[in-house]
Amino acid sequence: MKINDNNKTMIKNLVNEVKSSLNINETINIEIKPMKQKIASFSFKTKTLRLNKYVVENFEKDLLYYIILHELIHFKVKSTNHNLAFENELKKHFSEEICYEIELKIIQKLI
Amino acid sequence: MKINDNNKTMIKNLVNEVKSSLNINETINIEIKPMKQKIASFSFKTKTLRLNKYVVENFEKDLLYYIILHELIHFKVKSTNHNLAFENELKKHFSEEICYEIELKIIQKLI
Repeated sequence: MKINDNNKTMIKNLVNEVKSSLNINETINIEIKPMKQKIASFSFKTKTLRLNKYVVENFEKDLLYYIILHELIHFKVKSTNHNLAFENELKKHFSEEICYEIELKIIQKLI
Repeated sequence: MKINDNNKTMIKNLVNEVKSSLNINETINIEIKPMKQKIASFSFKTKTLRLNKYVVENFEKDLLYYIILHELIHFKVKSTNHNLAFENELKKHFSEEICYEIELKIIQKLI
């Protein structure tokens, strides 16, 4: 699967879904581009969610949802750390077991 | 931390440690280079372990050990899949709980 208008729309829809479940009303910019160091990142300065092009092209929708949720929780809790506020917000959306399953799937795509 | 002779030696030592714990006697080539798509990979054809330069530069030793172990288990069980043979071999080295902890740390460095 290569980046095309269909999966740009798919990502946009996923971002909207995540925003809605986190009660985020601000406009979030989305960039899909090759990234050497990260799967995804969030810039607080420009309110931009950056997604690794390879990941968008190759990861299933449930994994992408999880990754986008993770980034936007950083935005919501206004911290780049995986602190207690972050963990508590994540727990509202996925149980620890489901998080593990998804994280395992992500890892197995990378090693 | 940038790639230098010290951390090349550190990686070589980690690979030897993993080889020894897996009873692998064959020579394993090691390449450390920028990788767009993976943290690490293993080429069966050339018996080469490839490690993402960014990961070598930024990940702690326990995470690197886990990643190298993962790749060399693929070599040992002669499969690129995470099948039962793979899982059984991994279990000999780390409990499921420890695997989760390490995988979580890896993920948190990437998103």
